[in-house]
Amino acid sequence: MTIAILGGTGPQGKGLALRFARAGIPVVIGSRDAERAIECAAELSQKLAAIAPDAAVISGADTLTATQQASQLVILAVPFSAHNATLSSIKDLLQGKVLVDIVVPLAEGNPKAVAMPPEGSATEAAQALLGDSIPVVGALHNVSAVTLNKLDQHINCDVLVCGNDVDAKKAVRDVLAQIGITSYNAGTAESARCIEAITPILIRLNISKEVPFSHAGIRIWAPDH
Amino acid sequence: MTIAILGGTGPQGKGLALRFARAGIPVVIGSRDAERAIECAAELSQKLAAIAPDAAVISGADTLTATQQASQLVILAVPFSAHNATLSSIKDLLQGKVLVDIVVPLAEGNPKAVAMPPEGSATEAAQALLGDSIPVVGALHNVSAVTLNKLDQHINCDVLVCGNDVDAKKAVRDVLAQIGITSYNAGTAESARCIEAITPILIRLNISKEVPFSHAGIRIWAPDH
Repeated sequence: MTIAILGGTGPQGKGLALRFARAGIPVVIGSRDAERAIECAAELSQKLAAIAPDAAVISGADTLTATQQASQLVILAVPFSAHNATLSSIKDLLQGKVLVDIVVPLAEGNPKAVAMPPEGSATEAAQALLGDSIPVVGALHNVSAVTLNKLDQHINCDVLVCGNDVDAKKAVRDVLAQIGITSYNAGTAESARCIEAITPILIRLNISKEVPFSHAGIRIWAPDH
Repeated sequence: MTIAILGGTGPQGKGLALRFARAGIPVVIGSRDAERAIECAAELSQKLAAIAPDAAVISGADTLTATQQASQLVILAVPFSAHNATLSSIKDLLQGKVLVDIVVPLAEGNPKAVAMPPEGSATEAAQALLGDSIPVVGALHNVSAVTLNKLDQHINCDVLVCGNDVDAKKAVRDVLAQIGITSYNAGTAESARCIEAITPILIRLNISKEVPFSHAGIRIWAPDH
């Protein structure tokens, strides 16, 4: 099963590609610029060859081809400014697949705040644009791209997964489990209004140096015993 | 310094009263029904006497008197249905004080969702109603009331504190530290749209039994080393 990562030449996409491929899941990186996607895939493959000789293939393609090559999951990892245009361009190719929206609508020029679209969140905007026949799952919003790219580190962030389709959420959670990420079902797409907005709170902590580390994550935590 | 807790006869208010008093901070519980507040205070005082003989006094009063008796911090812990009416009734008494809003606008009949007011969140609604001269701080939304009342347990939940007044946030975080709670500055009042909405996600996890415990909390978490 091949996962497509659109906007996969960005830091979040690269880190996810490395981790999926290392776990044996083939990845196709999609970009508007196919050449750039192919170069990026080659660079990531080389990086993995040194540390994980049994890794699956990472390839590159233009956005439409990458979408077509996905077995089921198409991860959208573009900047929010390209969110709706990218979805419109691939809508017809998404039938029978699941769109995994990891985009956070950060405010222009202020990463410590969100500027949510009229639908309430990026995930809800995607669901509205794609229509009910294509399930949208919001996930992976709060994970640091830097940490994703440090392959010797575990992900210090539980992933809150939301969406209106239970089976689609389960499919996403299954692949997250394969790369060692703990995830939770956080409800319908509307929960993305909360989940996407956690990211600027974490960015604020990192910028303020209030926490004695960068790249803070969140964890669901049990009571003391 | 005396802290007022309005709606303090509810489970969240009681747990906070016990923990503040145990830490040596006097508490006055406010309720529309002064008799009920006085009875509740007596009951909590008795509970503390057995385990913390040096605890500060917990007293009870009607809502207006309790507000007047607060040195600085007035915690609003009423159901959301009473949120705005309570604030309107105490507005004139809040000059020079800080309103600490811990109310989560859970959807009617569905604790797994929020139904946010037009202002965006309860904290923003409070700030709009009280005007800029009275600082509102959102805090303590995600802490389980059950855990708050189990005095032998630490609080398994970091507190995200938000509001437009930096000094007011600091005052709130200082008293939270006195009861052993780790808190973070999560930004302006607008962040309450996210923070208040974390609570129904935790409630969903508790109801679904997806987590092998009840009363889940959240933690800010560092990367692996």
